[in-house]
Amino acid sequence: MDFNVTGFDLTALPQLRQMWAAQAESLRHELEHQDAYPKYIVKTVADAAAYQGVRVENVGSAGELKNMTFPSHSSVILDFGEHHVGYFEFTMRTATGYCDSPVSLRLMMAELPYELEYTSDKFTGKLSQGWIQEEYIKIDVLPGTIRLPRRYACRYLRIDIIATPNQLIFDQICFDTVAARNSLPQAPAGVSVLDQELYTAACRTLRDCMQTCFEDGPKRDRRLWLGDLYLQAKSNAVTYRDYLLVERSICLLAANTNDAGMIAVCAFEHPGMRTNCFYPDYMMLMPALLLDHLDEYDRREFAAGFYPLAIQQLRVFRGMIAGENCTLTRYPQYRYFIDHCPQLEVETAEICVYIFALRKAAELARKLGFDGDIAALTAEADRWEQNIRKYAFDHDSGLLVSGAARQVSQASQIWGILSGVLSIDEGKAALTKVKTLPGAVRSRNPYLLTYLLEVYDICGMSEDLDELLHSYWGGMLKLGADTFWEMFDPDDLYQELYGDAYLLSACHAWSCAPSLYIR
Amino acid sequence: MDFNVTGFDLTALPQLRQMWAAQAESLRHELEHQDAYPKYIVKTVADAAAYQGVRVENVGSAGELKNMTFPSHSSVILDFGEHHVGYFEFTMRTATGYCDSPVSLRLMMAELPYELEYTSDKFTGKLSQGWIQEEYIKIDVLPGTIRLPRRYACRYLRIDIIATPNQLIFDQICFDTVAARNSLPQAPAGVSVLDQELYTAACRTLRDCMQTCFEDGPKRDRRLWLGDLYLQAKSNAVTYRDYLLVERSICLLAANTNDAGMIAVCAFEHPGMRTNCFYPDYMMLMPALLLDHLDEYDRREFAAGFYPLAIQQLRVFRGMIAGENCTLTRYPQYRYFIDHCPQLEVETAEICVYIFALRKAAELARKLGFDGDIAALTAEADRWEQNIRKYAFDHDSGLLVSGAARQVSQASQIWGILSGVLSIDEGKAALTKVKTLPGAVRSRNPYLLTYLLEVYDICGMSEDLDELLHSYWGGMLKLGADTFWEMFDPDDLYQELYGDAYLLSACHAWSCAPSLYIR
Repeated sequence: MDFNVTGFDLTALPQLRQMWAAQAESLRHELEHQDAYPKYIVKTVADAAAYQGVRVENVGSAGELKNMTFPSHSSVILDFGEHHVGYFEFTMRTATGYCDSPVSLRLMMAELPYELEYTSDKFTGKLSQGWIQEEYIKIDVLPGTIRLPRRYACRYLRIDIIATPNQLIFDQICFDTVAARNSLPQAPAGVSVLDQELYTAACRTLRDCMQTCFEDGPKRDRRLWLGDLYLQAKSNAVTYRDYLLVERSICLLAANTNDAGMIAVCAFEHPGMRTNCFYPDYMMLMPALLLDHLDEYDRREFAAGFYPLAIQQLRVFRGMIAGENCTLTRYPQYRYFIDHCPQLEVETAEICVYIFALRKAAELARKLGFDGDIAALTAEADRWEQNIRKYAFDHDSGLLVSGAARQVSQASQIWGILSGVLSIDEGKAALTKVKTLPGAVRSRNPYLLTYLLEVYDICGMSEDLDELLHSYWGGMLKLGADTFWEMFDPDDLYQELYGDAYLLSACHAWSCAPSLYIR
Repeated sequence: MDFNVTGFDLTALPQLRQMWAAQAESLRHELEHQDAYPKYIVKTVADAAAYQGVRVENVGSAGELKNMTFPSHSSVILDFGEHHVGYFEFTMRTATGYCDSPVSLRLMMAELPYELEYTSDKFTGKLSQGWIQEEYIKIDVLPGTIRLPRRYACRYLRIDIIATPNQLIFDQICFDTVAARNSLPQAPAGVSVLDQELYTAACRTLRDCMQTCFEDGPKRDRRLWLGDLYLQAKSNAVTYRDYLLVERSICLLAANTNDAGMIAVCAFEHPGMRTNCFYPDYMMLMPALLLDHLDEYDRREFAAGFYPLAIQQLRVFRGMIAGENCTLTRYPQYRYFIDHCPQLEVETAEICVYIFALRKAAELARKLGFDGDIAALTAEADRWEQNIRKYAFDHDSGLLVSGAARQVSQASQIWGILSGVLSIDEGKAALTKVKTLPGAVRSRNPYLLTYLLEVYDICGMSEDLDELLHSYWGGMLKLGADTFWEMFDPDDLYQELYGDAYLLSACHAWSCAPSLYIR
């Protein structure tokens, strides 16, 4: 079966991919640069109460650095005061001016204090150890200024002097920071100090992820993801308003559309590197992303150009539904994501994302003048809403359930509300119940928790919204965050990610939501 | 007292240094490039009979490399077939084409097999650990070609794959080799296979030390030294004949002349780095160096321009002589070198270098038309020849002795012969006697042993010359050398240098002499 809606010509894909890649390139804009300098000299201190068991302690002003001399086997840790993304330039000399042999340095660029203690033998991660921002460099001739070619995301810089012909002096260490927009927006007037801090950290997080595309994390994995982009674009609309970056990012993803017409949910900027990531619930965000963009930027021709591709995502997902009872066909190459949570039963949430997407698509069709599609999209949404209520709504508890085991989760309630399957009143009751219900699967992930903020907002549950904002995002702040993390479990200060806590990205796009809810 | 010879205006030094630096710059010529590729894939094998206890064993042709795939934690060692100096370019990709994280490599560029086993914790050296050609690099995007910015001197390249997103493939590893002259001269016709090999290794050693100046060792310490330059210029005259490089090198040293008018015996090419090395016996090589250069290249104005500076070296040394009895004043800032040998008594050799230099200066004065200087230079030489024969010649043994302990050394006899203090017959007898005399200080250093080759030649001792050439330089060949080493003691396969065997320069200028004696 198929929709009776605007079609998508799969045979045109090779040309479309080229066109979108070219469009992405034409939308590239220069990054803004701003020089940052170290603020403090710090040392690490073991502290069981600190995040990951390590905090830093100021031992001096970084203004002192240029008066300090470093022999072989000495070290220094610099704190730049806040997280940045950019390039390092070291202006160095030896105390005597004599330099008869190479200077050898180990550098560790760290987002979090814990990383400052990294040594390569500690690595236990399943992802590439290459993500660790550790460098060994040699400088043949001093005095001079050395610029490192790679980009780093960090707040701290540890320098270990492995060898120097005589005492080494750092006349200046400049962090040439880059972002699509480099000025942090002011927090709204009249909010609490905590809310100001949340707002600023959220803006800083977004800023450092806004490079030549919307990245998920500038330390790791420096890629554009559709799920993150959807949230970034929303935050961008109330902060930096860099709409061309949104368009460039959409084009980059579209240029990686697969032969089934599924938009890639992740893309590299380098044209030679094609993605193999296709998540149904991410790709179905396309209608909502285009609708938001149209509402904010009002560039009809852009949204209209991608409308057929957005509809195609719904068509593809439709083919993944195994039966009227809201079960899904599993594919080894596609991942039903919803949340980083292995035990989560995703079927109900996925179908609700589908309904959400259909309703957004109908609204988009209406605004763009694809009037002939509206009825079919709405009918399809209504049909699956009925199915979900029939097969996945537990009338006794008032909760949506998922899978054969009829699992109760936050995820199902959240997408139930966002899709309109649950009414505001039902949603409010369900969200309240699931907060404490024994056995309910609750999220510890900023991505899904951002949608929880949204449904609290939709349901008028402002106290719950504030409580979540302050306990979860505020919890990171209390632990010293100045950008929001990829993962955070308030009950686990030693959380691992991909087998290693060092792999955590401490500035991660999908955590940038607070700026949307501090008004 | 002073010579009654051409003077040197110390007040003009600031201008002279600038002029010589500019002259050095104007004499700089482009390096020749030649692409080298790995020849073999090898592995290291522990072998007590091998130099430093390690040899390599071929395990395959390097042509296979492009068909090999390397996972994280794998390694490969490549043998480029001979020693080169240059820049590495790696053309790499991942087997699947997918590259979602940085590739992290450790590289070890090795002149000798022993270095391939280096790990940083083994380092015990007193010089900078930065000399070790170990690099850690990260590559963010593949496929691609990466060129490393630093220059290396090596025959072997070890690659340790620390991390790669999937199997790594090296499509090509190119060693962009550089030298002032890149083509190895043919060995003279009709010589033995061993002599051919000695000649080729000598030429390769010189080639790899001939960069934008005559370096002492392209791995360590990449500097111009006057003692090495004197021997390099002699070998260059019978091989590459790059006379402009000789002139540039002389200008670089002259530009570092100190306020006493002493030419620096070592110079860096970078104008910001001034040397503090002043060795009396090296600086006194200037007249002979200019004379050789004039004889070979016949550029009178160049030699004439440096004649006053050359004479100044003799004038300064004259002031270092403490008395007619051939004793020397010691200065903390100047080093009487002669040989790398702590127990060597250098006074007799130093005075003989002075006499040698005076006689060379007289010859130079004659050829350049400074006729008024000839008599004074010759009279000064004669005077110190008489003093040496009076105070340092042992009539019973027919040997020159040195110091209060009247130490017998090869060094004293060698410089006795080179200076003409000993006649050919006396020299022949002295060299024969000192070879086996118990307690005599004999050299294990290519620098002094090169002068031993010369005096064997002067004295017509061709069998001794061949024996030394074949046992000492041939001894390195037998241990796998393809360039001659900075240090070699045939009785010590584990020789340390500056506290660590890894610091040895295995391609060292002052060892390049065999090409002079294979005819």
